[in-house]
Amino acid sequence: MASPPTVDPEVFYSKLPAFHVEPLWRARGLMRPAPGREAVGCVWRYDEVRRLLLESGDVVTAAEADRRVLMLLNPGLDGAAAATANLYAGLQLVLPGEVAPKHRHAAAAIRFIVEGDGAYTAVDGEKSVMRPGDLVLTPNWTWHDHGNESDGPMIWLDGLDIPLVNKLDVPFFESPGEDRQLLTRPDDASARHWAQGRLRPLWEGDWQRRYSPVVNYPWTVTERVLRDAAADTDGTPHDGVVFRYTNPVDGGHVLPTLGCAVQLLKAGFRGAAHRHTSAAVYHVVRGNGATIVDGARLTWGPGDTFAVPGWAVHEHAAGDEEAILFSFTDEPVLESLDLLRTAPADRQEA
Amino acid sequence: MASPPTVDPEVFYSKLPAFHVEPLWRARGLMRPAPGREAVGCVWRYDEVRRLLLESGDVVTAAEADRRVLMLLNPGLDGAAAATANLYAGLQLVLPGEVAPKHRHAAAAIRFIVEGDGAYTAVDGEKSVMRPGDLVLTPNWTWHDHGNESDGPMIWLDGLDIPLVNKLDVPFFESPGEDRQLLTRPDDASARHWAQGRLRPLWEGDWQRRYSPVVNYPWTVTERVLRDAAADTDGTPHDGVVFRYTNPVDGGHVLPTLGCAVQLLKAGFRGAAHRHTSAAVYHVVRGNGATIVDGARLTWGPGDTFAVPGWAVHEHAAGDEEAILFSFTDEPVLESLDLLRTAPADRQEA
Amino acid sequence: MASPPTVDPEVFYSKLPAFHVEPLWRARGLMRPAPGREAVGCVWRYDEVRRLLLESGDVVTAAEADRRVLMLLNPGLDGAAAATANLYAGLQLVLPGEVAPKHRHAAAAIRFIVEGDGAYTAVDGEKSVMRPGDLVLTPNWTWHDHGNESDGPMIWLDGLDIPLVNKLDVPFFESPGEDRQLLTRPDDASARHWAQGRLRPLWEGDWQRRYSPVVNYPWTVTERVLRDAAADTDGTPHDGVVFRYTNPVDGGHVLPTLGCAVQLLKAGFRGAAHRHTSAAVYHVVRGNGATIVDGARLTWGPGDTFAVPGWAVHEHAAGDEEAILFSFTDEPVLESLDLLRTAPADRQEA
Amino acid sequence: MASPPTVDPEVFYSKLPAFHVEPLWRARGLMRPAPGREAVGCVWRYDEVRRLLLESGDVVTAAEADRRVLMLLNPGLDGAAAATANLYAGLQLVLPGEVAPKHRHAAAAIRFIVEGDGAYTAVDGEKSVMRPGDLVLTPNWTWHDHGNESDGPMIWLDGLDIPLVNKLDVPFFESPGEDRQLLTRPDDASARHWAQGRLRPLWEGDWQRRYSPVVNYPWTVTERVLRDAAADTDGTPHDGVVFRYTNPVDGGHVLPTLGCAVQLLKAGFRGAAHRHTSAAVYHVVRGNGATIVDGARLTWGPGDTFAVPGWAVHEHAAGDEEAILFSFTDEPVLESLDLLRTAPADRQEA
Ligand SMILES: [Fe+2]
Ligand SMILES: [Fe+2]
Ligand SMILES: [Fe+2]
Ligand SMILES: [Fe+2]
Ligand SMILES: [Fe+2]
Ligand SMILES: [Fe+2]
Ligand SMILES: [Fe+2]
Ligand SMILES: [Fe+2]
Repeated sequence: MASPPTVDPEVFYSKLPAFHVEPLWRARGLMRPAPGREAVGCVWRYDEVRRLLLESGDVVTAAEADRRVLMLLNPGLDGAAAATANLYAGLQLVLPGEVAPKHRHAAAAIRFIVEGDGAYTAVDGEKSVMRPGDLVLTPNWTWHDHGNESDGPMIWLDGLDIPLVNKLDVPFFESPGEDRQLLTRPDDASARHWAQGRLRPLWEGDWQRRYSPVVNYPWTVTERVLRDAAADTDGTPHDGVVFRYTNPVDGGHVLPTLGCAVQLLKAGFRGAAHRHTSAAVYHVVRGNGATIVDGARLTWGPGDTFAVPGWAVHEHAAGDEEAILFSFTDEPVLESLDLLRTAPADRQEA
Repeated sequence: MASPPTVDPEVFYSKLPAFHVEPLWRARGLMRPAPGREAVGCVWRYDEVRRLLLESGDVVTAAEADRRVLMLLNPGLDGAAAATANLYAGLQLVLPGEVAPKHRHAAAAIRFIVEGDGAYTAVDGEKSVMRPGDLVLTPNWTWHDHGNESDGPMIWLDGLDIPLVNKLDVPFFESPGEDRQLLTRPDDASARHWAQGRLRPLWEGDWQRRYSPVVNYPWTVTERVLRDAAADTDGTPHDGVVFRYTNPVDGGHVLPTLGCAVQLLKAGFRGAAHRHTSAAVYHVVRGNGATIVDGARLTWGPGDTFAVPGWAVHEHAAGDEEAILFSFTDEPVLESLDLLRTAPADRQEA
Repeated sequence: MASPPTVDPEVFYSKLPAFHVEPLWRARGLMRPAPGREAVGCVWRYDEVRRLLLESGDVVTAAEADRRVLMLLNPGLDGAAAATANLYAGLQLVLPGEVAPKHRHAAAAIRFIVEGDGAYTAVDGEKSVMRPGDLVLTPNWTWHDHGNESDGPMIWLDGLDIPLVNKLDVPFFESPGEDRQLLTRPDDASARHWAQGRLRPLWEGDWQRRYSPVVNYPWTVTERVLRDAAADTDGTPHDGVVFRYTNPVDGGHVLPTLGCAVQLLKAGFRGAAHRHTSAAVYHVVRGNGATIVDGARLTWGPGDTFAVPGWAVHEHAAGDEEAILFSFTDEPVLESLDLLRTAPADRQEA
Repeated sequence: MASPPTVDPEVFYSKLPAFHVEPLWRARGLMRPAPGREAVGCVWRYDEVRRLLLESGDVVTAAEADRRVLMLLNPGLDGAAAATANLYAGLQLVLPGEVAPKHRHAAAAIRFIVEGDGAYTAVDGEKSVMRPGDLVLTPNWTWHDHGNESDGPMIWLDGLDIPLVNKLDVPFFESPGEDRQLLTRPDDASARHWAQGRLRPLWEGDWQRRYSPVVNYPWTVTERVLRDAAADTDGTPHDGVVFRYTNPVDGGHVLPTLGCAVQLLKAGFRGAAHRHTSAAVYHVVRGNGATIVDGARLTWGPGDTFAVPGWAVHEHAAGDEEAILFSFTDEPVLESLDLLRTAPADRQEA
């Protein structure tokens, strides 16, 4: 192999596009020293979003009612439908009588009920009536539909992995044009049969799927467990008395792409500063407090939703009364791909 | 290699012992066509064993009080301390004020509370007060001690893997001569922190051990779950509405060598006949019924204990009212070793 | 809750940005019915890219020599440094005497040696001398450096998960300014100690990491195994005699984010059409053939690299002589996230 | 509950058998402080056993020829067909023209070829021709048969889990009366397709079984790997350069109940003393040496077989030349049941 002939750089570079190659030595930012953290910490006030949702009644046509969702957009992400790099969040209003017809998609979803009582979601043949604080799963490619058979409005927080699924370019969606799926099991059967995650219902047989068989994790249970534990312990330095919702079949995350947690911060709790590559969207179930995210103080109160992007330094603090936060996260994704990294951080001024 | 010289069989065989070899071609029964099933189906009546236990007060010295256990011996096993080939069972009486000092052993144990209220078991730094129907685990090599601080007698069923551990010749036992272990956690902390098996207490950290972190699975929970499920389903053809107790960390059996289950047989239930290589010891929590084991009908009522040996054809039937059975089994052993085998069977006459 | 007041849509929508919310009912394309497949099937001819690489000698300064890589850009991805949605590929030239100083990054890499003999890569304390066909792993966050101590040029194919790591926004990079890492093990120790994946070297101890302990999978072994198998079998309908490179510790993929495979297509092989959400970049080790990708026929010969995007219908065909293809893929990512989907397809005309 | 009436101990104890209960407080040795170690360290000299095997020709009838095995009996186990508590070992002679008809059993077996060349074993549709040093697996319930189509005698070491399977009382055996099973795959296909444990043959599909898919682990490979590694390392303090044979599908033991290993002790090697609850049967492939077992020095040379019982303190030493030992063990059993325990020990005098 002889030494290469002298070449004119300009000529050289101009030739490359025709061959679909580009020089790495001129590429900038291909491997960055740390996450870019374009997403920022931010809060969506419940009273504001709720008011907008109610106003939207006149704007949304009847046919679109099943999509009456205000998506929560991270101000740092340039208009992308994302609350953090990989997480979508939205607040949905469902009025009495409205339904969302049966459909399924590759994006996995969780919903956390904020307000109202008695609407249902049906998932893979099981219908579940939802109440505030309930966590409902609609995993990847499961048939689901919902409707409000109660006489009041329902508002819930939707959490999805849409940004992830779209970035990976593996979306799928089907909507066969039927209002409701066939119900093949008693209402809320999974919540009841797996009610006590430590007792496995053997008549349910093997469970080969990768997500939790439980459709609805009811708040009545969650709250009692949280409160009982809080009587014993202060929990972790970062997150207080914190539980991860798990798949009772294997003890892992509820979904392969979304994790969920609930935490109780005792009155006056001041959490340790830290960061991790996973991001989270928090919903305030109860109490007031503040979370400092990369030096910015986000105050929050009941019903508010706030985002902590991946690798952002953050610390939670409760006000004078205890606070309870629900959250969903992309931690399972980063864990599976061996890209989860955690680090302590210095206490922030804010 | 020349053809071997002519040998006199008698001479030949007489030489072998000196070399510690024996001819396979004269061995009989080395590989049998199916389990020998020396253990038989049998029932221990609660009223009888209870009466004997109470009588034993005069016989057992104070120093031996912590061993006031009547071992349930399978009539087919020739006096071995075993209820089935691999399972030990015993009924223990603990009188007010009695204690069993701190110790640990390689054999793993479960105890299921039959009668009395308020004695405690302490396991690995956690004390748990026990009530009827509670399932308490003392896994392999965990420090444990117990005592009766109540003012009434306590009776519980002990289930252990002693026959297995002894056959494998891997026993270990330590008794350091201290009455009580140091308590390092709030009483019943594990039951409370893992109360809802679907919620993982993150402050408990990683759990690297091979057994459930839960010391006590309280009956109040078990019964409610059982009852709720029974309103929905008839469960399995063989066992009715049956739950396996699981390790909430990974959804597996509570111990690597012992599995536990609880089942509700509805009034009039008649189970399908079947068999499996795993054996089980059942305890009747409530109700009357009968189990046909290899053609023999075992009737049972409240408090009775009965054994179904491995590979015995069996079918359960409830009487006119619902029955609830607790059981422990060597299924995890056979599963781990790929020696679990299940087969349907013809309905038996008995 | 009263019916919402009448609102002017224009006014309504104009208010939303201030609250960082947007209407889902006006969002388009959030959940698409199937992968968008912007990436297209394409081939990079080895003679062309090789010539450009050699020409680049005059253009790349000495200091940049360790980045003398021509990145292979998928024409459908609008200039992104990506051969498929999630995979980066590049051809690197290393001239005698050149070195790449010690560094590490969150992006995981594989390199497959195309030409030359005798340069080395050092990974986590072990140096490996590379020869054509060798597969070398530099997993997520492992220290690595390389250099050409031979007297000829080396060319290899780099495969990385850069697009994935960047989309997830979890990049990390460190370059401490030292030319070489300390070597703590004999050269090629891992290849030798794990040489026979079925024999586990017990002195290596537990392996807790999530990637294969093997630095170099040498071609001499790979080729022999491939050839022996081809004497027995035609392999799979889609891919002929195909092997996945695995982590001998657990039998899984070599890296959590990148899978590798090698396949032999017998002379005249015509593979079945199919598709899967995972994408692959193929490198032709030997032989000629063609792959039809979404109806476009890509012909290929020795040294060529070609891309098959996720969900593209594809079928491979060998020419009159056998062909051998190496490939790397994002299959482990989609598998872990439960987003891997496979489907048969009709034979294509092209 | 009133205090129990005064009872006469003699009367009391005499009543118990009728109720199938016995007092724990009079039971001795139920939970021992440590393994009883009835099995002892012992050696079976190859020249002696071989001579006896050859002599047996006149004693064994033609019909029994397939069982011409001298079982190696541990002198401490009172005539049980066991080399250690859980392991059976036997040396088998198969003369030219002899066959063992197709059968299967729950007991799992390995065979390690000692002498002769060219007999075959067929397992689950695959025939493998065996040569000295080859390890052949006949897992639990796989159909197998063997025959000697060569013109010389074959001798191999049989290793089985018979004592375990019998203690657990889960034997099964079937012998349908056909000489040979149908061969459904090319001879030695598994050895070839999984030849390089790090390359997974994808056309073999999913492998759901719990044992290795490889029928024969050929000595030619084993020896080369052992020798190459020995050039790099001294291996572990206890066992020198030691490899575990693994199941390439998951990296685990070859069988759920039997593990296999091969180790090279360099000339003059003196291993550290230690013990573990698992037992092993060793076969000397090459070299001379000695193993001290619970203070007794066992010298060994080529072809000899020796046993190290569970929990026996042991240390291996090679003579003036390197030694190679093959071994099989019940380690997987104890590991699965969480009963594996290891401890260092003081150097022994012997
Ligand atoms: Fe949906
Ligand atoms: Fe955090
Ligand atoms: Fe005990
Ligand atoms: Fe049963
Ligand atoms: Fe690099
Ligand atoms: Fe493909
Ligand atoms: Fe056999
Ligand atoms: Fe050892």
